[in-house]
Amino acid sequence: MAYRAPVDEIAFTLKTVAGLDGVLSEGLFPDLSEDLVDAILEEAGRFATEALAPLNAEGDRAGSRFSDGRVETPRGWADAYRQWLDGGWSTLSGPTAFGGQDLPQALQAATVDLWNEACPSFAIAPILSSGAIEAIDAHASDGLKQLYLENLVTGKWTGTMNLTEPQAGSDLAALRTRAERAEDGTYRIFGQKIYITYGEHDLTDNIVHLVLARLPDAPAGTRGISLFLVPKFLVNEDGSLGARNDVTCRGIEHKLGLHASPTCTMGYGDDGEGAVGYLIGEENRGLACMFTMMNNARLNVGLQGVGVAERALQAAADYAAERTQGRSPDYAGEGMSPIVYHPDVKRMLLSMRALTGAARSIAYACAVAIDRAERMSGEDARFWKARADLLTPIAKAFSTDVGVEVASLGIQVHGGMGYVEETGAAQYLRDARIFPIYEGTNGIQAIDLVMRKLPMGDGAAMASWIADLRRDADRVRGANRPEFTGIGDRLLQAIGHLEDCSAWLAEARSGGREAEALAGATPFLTLAGLTGGACGLAVGAVASAGEDADRDSMTARRRALVAQVFAETHLSRTESLAREIMGGSAAISAAPVELLAS
Amino acid sequence: MAYRAPVDEIAFTLKTVAGLDGVLSEGLFPDLSEDLVDAILEEAGRFATEALAPLNAEGDRAGSRFSDGRVETPRGWADAYRQWLDGGWSTLSGPTAFGGQDLPQALQAATVDLWNEACPSFAIAPILSSGAIEAIDAHASDGLKQLYLENLVTGKWTGTMNLTEPQAGSDLAALRTRAERAEDGTYRIFGQKIYITYGEHDLTDNIVHLVLARLPDAPAGTRGISLFLVPKFLVNEDGSLGARNDVTCRGIEHKLGLHASPTCTMGYGDDGEGAVGYLIGEENRGLACMFTMMNNARLNVGLQGVGVAERALQAAADYAAERTQGRSPDYAGEGMSPIVYHPDVKRMLLSMRALTGAARSIAYACAVAIDRAERMSGEDARFWKARADLLTPIAKAFSTDVGVEVASLGIQVHGGMGYVEETGAAQYLRDARIFPIYEGTNGIQAIDLVMRKLPMGDGAAMASWIADLRRDADRVRGANRPEFTGIGDRLLQAIGHLEDCSAWLAEARSGGREAEALAGATPFLTLAGLTGGACGLAVGAVASAGEDADRDSMTARRRALVAQVFAETHLSRTESLAREIMGGSAAISAAPVELLAS
Repeated sequence: MAYRAPVDEIAFTLKTVAGLDGVLSEGLFPDLSEDLVDAILEEAGRFATEALAPLNAEGDRAGSRFSDGRVETPRGWADAYRQWLDGGWSTLSGPTAFGGQDLPQALQAATVDLWNEACPSFAIAPILSSGAIEAIDAHASDGLKQLYLENLVTGKWTGTMNLTEPQAGSDLAALRTRAERAEDGTYRIFGQKIYITYGEHDLTDNIVHLVLARLPDAPAGTRGISLFLVPKFLVNEDGSLGARNDVTCRGIEHKLGLHASPTCTMGYGDDGEGAVGYLIGEENRGLACMFTMMNNARLNVGLQGVGVAERALQAAADYAAERTQGRSPDYAGEGMSPIVYHPDVKRMLLSMRALTGAARSIAYACAVAIDRAERMSGEDARFWKARADLLTPIAKAFSTDVGVEVASLGIQVHGGMGYVEETGAAQYLRDARIFPIYEGTNGIQAIDLVMRKLPMGDGAAMASWIADLRRDADRVRGANRPEFTGIGDRLLQAIGHLEDCSAWLAEARSGGREAEALAGATPFLTLAGLTGGACGLAVGAVASAGEDADRDSMTARRRALVAQVFAETHLSRTESLAREIMGGSAAISAAPVELLAS
Repeated sequence: MAYRAPVDEIAFTLKTVAGLDGVLSEGLFPDLSEDLVDAILEEAGRFATEALAPLNAEGDRAGSRFSDGRVETPRGWADAYRQWLDGGWSTLSGPTAFGGQDLPQALQAATVDLWNEACPSFAIAPILSSGAIEAIDAHASDGLKQLYLENLVTGKWTGTMNLTEPQAGSDLAALRTRAERAEDGTYRIFGQKIYITYGEHDLTDNIVHLVLARLPDAPAGTRGISLFLVPKFLVNEDGSLGARNDVTCRGIEHKLGLHASPTCTMGYGDDGEGAVGYLIGEENRGLACMFTMMNNARLNVGLQGVGVAERALQAAADYAAERTQGRSPDYAGEGMSPIVYHPDVKRMLLSMRALTGAARSIAYACAVAIDRAERMSGEDARFWKARADLLTPIAKAFSTDVGVEVASLGIQVHGGMGYVEETGAAQYLRDARIFPIYEGTNGIQAIDLVMRKLPMGDGAAMASWIADLRRDADRVRGANRPEFTGIGDRLLQAIGHLEDCSAWLAEARSGGREAEALAGATPFLTLAGLTGGACGLAVGAVASAGEDADRDSMTARRRALVAQVFAETHLSRTESLAREIMGGSAAISAAPVELLAS
């Protein structure tokens, strides 16, 4: 069967689990009703299914092609992009002043999930644009906004992020691209950037690069980095396109996956005079501006993980329902059973569904926190900003680990058919494997969580999340069904592990054992993701069972089953992870590097 | 840095950890000394490094090509194959009566590890030949042996296994290829086989296919399957090649990885008269014959997992030592630290090394058990046969899961460089991803372990393994160093979980809860692999530290560190796995299939 947009599940997770319903009932988006949310999601689901999903396999086979500084996207790409603009999908959460609809980030997040289910190598282009829009909107001068923002919001142009250089990946302090002040107040940019997603393409007339570079007199390290807007074509005062800027695509990467998304090496100032750039924000304060777009992009990459997991799950579930092999003890039909009857296949499919749902609930909760932070004020706004900051690395790393794991399980469900490229199962793994790497590797996310987010407000952000999770768990435990009591008990255990490890990490950090905290960061992030995700699944299951009409519907029964299996299998890992974090980090961090050489 | 054959580590694991030293000192291979083993491994390491490793990336890029029924292997393949024959590598464990050297399976296993570190898409060809040799040697008539065996043993010809058909993958009962009796005592084969590794190629003059097919009057199901030898070219009485047989390669698969290994669709009898086949063993008893070759192949596929893991580990360790980013708290040098100094990277590298070593120790222990079963007699032979039967599914599935996990971690260590194909890190994952699928999916291995191997002798095989592991753990615990005491304690806990779960599964099986046992099979196999592997690492560490001269050598310190970190991190999972098996299997197995549809 072909891909189906899981609109009902997405709407339910968004409203009931992640709490967009509360955001709406509190009037934070006065013009938006739940019905309108449903209608938009319905339409987005249609667009994902009809316009994007058919591109996925063909885009993978054809790939984007490079020659002579130009990038040709696969057949169908330009058409789909035009339809995307016509549908208004580009403008969803953009600022109204520049043609945007100013809808919730959470609603935008749900559509990003859908686009990535359908075709992640297409969907990554608008993700970068969104980040650029946000950074320009927050930090650029009014003049730059007037000239660039509307065309970016409406998707007439696309935006990119230019951070990485060969010697500067995770460590931006090492970057060398230089900017010189010109007499007219603009700048000239010289240098090379690598891994620039959609750095060059044939979808739009112009491309707006946001580029990190150093001024000649800049301090060393990250405090000497400035952010510049460098358009492919200069833009005249009247908005028309002017001269070609000295920005060139030198080539594209041959990658494991996401073949249709061109990953470009960009040269700035190759002709000698420098590429014309415009400062965004203040000199030497570029990193702060860039972080604006990175947080947005990190959540969106997490949603890529959710999206590909959903697609892999659908393909595996369909295959398991059709493919017959052997006879399961439970199968009453004639001949061989569909493999979905085999307990080991059930285990894989339930894992896939539970992991996907768990990751989705965390990513959406992060998006709702962003909306609350933006729409509320004072203490409330600060509270939700802290929540969004806390959840962003978890939403990015846990969801993308899930993307890889679910895609790999999807191959396994397909057996030999999963290894041949025709079925598509292999593409999901190839595509998903970059998500734990780009926009900050998952190791960087874990370090961010442990070294920056846990200490916020002396641990207040984590403490308040734990308190909320405990409230959820108590509610699950108190729901009037025996299976929920068991789930609630397990949630409370896992939350206990999360709390213990948070305290242990705080102690390690403040007690001069920073390296131990760093060694425990990745398992801690996994622990947090499993716990938060399990709570999301359980809250959804209880809500589904809560209404009499739904109580025994297929959907309600499925949610209860998935929450239960997750609590009894994956969630058991929190105990081991806690032992690993508190027991294993010392030996890892103390390991002499000479023993790690090959 | 380029690949280096880890000959010392392999020799140590083989002799000291897996126990080949005992096999030799007991005189089971009277002509073989430890020195000779070392010399052979040294030479194999050289061959792997010089002749095979350089083929790996190029073979992946070029792939094998199909046209008009012919398969062209990549440039260099035919040369390497000739050198392989000249080096005598083909004959290592083959029967002396037919040109083999009759060396231990364990020594053969160590070389298979090396070949797969260097180039798995080359190494898979002899793996299939080995299986064919073993099946022919054990079950074919003297006439067939005389005509075919020597050329297979010496590698002049290669052998294949033809099991799978589109409707018959894991379930061989469903196969339809038919065999008709001819008047001259031979048979005529008609049908299609898929996924035939090296079913056609240009390396040898002849290819000997072992084909499962059904006679017209055969009983339904697996009791009606016969095994046939079907040569590409018929062989005259004098051994010269005769007419082309009606066996055709119809095409090769476009796969995620192992591009150089042609995965063929084979047609038998396309011209109408049938392909000439010769019965191996008795009519309708083909499955038993095939299992002879499948067990051999399963261990070898496990070794493919070990091999690719080793290669991925080396690449990641090298990259981490050279690539600089950021500053680790522990780094005393100037500027950015090599990333190996970062605790999160240490964690990944230690995981990779520990998982690889753990898997290697299990696979080699399985091979040593096979040797003992073959060389000993009476009760001893039966004991070791049972041990080999028990360890085979673990060696296959755990090691191949490790192969995928380590290859994926290797990509992560490389960051963005891991996702571009030039570095090779991505190839390791693409290549490794088939190992958990072919030669019986890992789910099938887990079912084999739980439903067939655990019940053997009323649980005696598992009980005796557990007793041995416990003896190992006690020895580790008693070794006179505090870190070994801690490791020994953790081993004993894990062994307790293995014992508890074995008992629980036996009860589920015998108590009419077969589906629950099946649902717990995969996590149980993982539990067994982690426990056995951790014991292997710890035994090696203790042995290394035991000799005064070695006590503080780099190697001894590294082994102690790796054993400790594994015990404190990965081994913690046994507790969660035990909860998952005993607590989660009921819900999974009872899950109504309608809730698993997409």
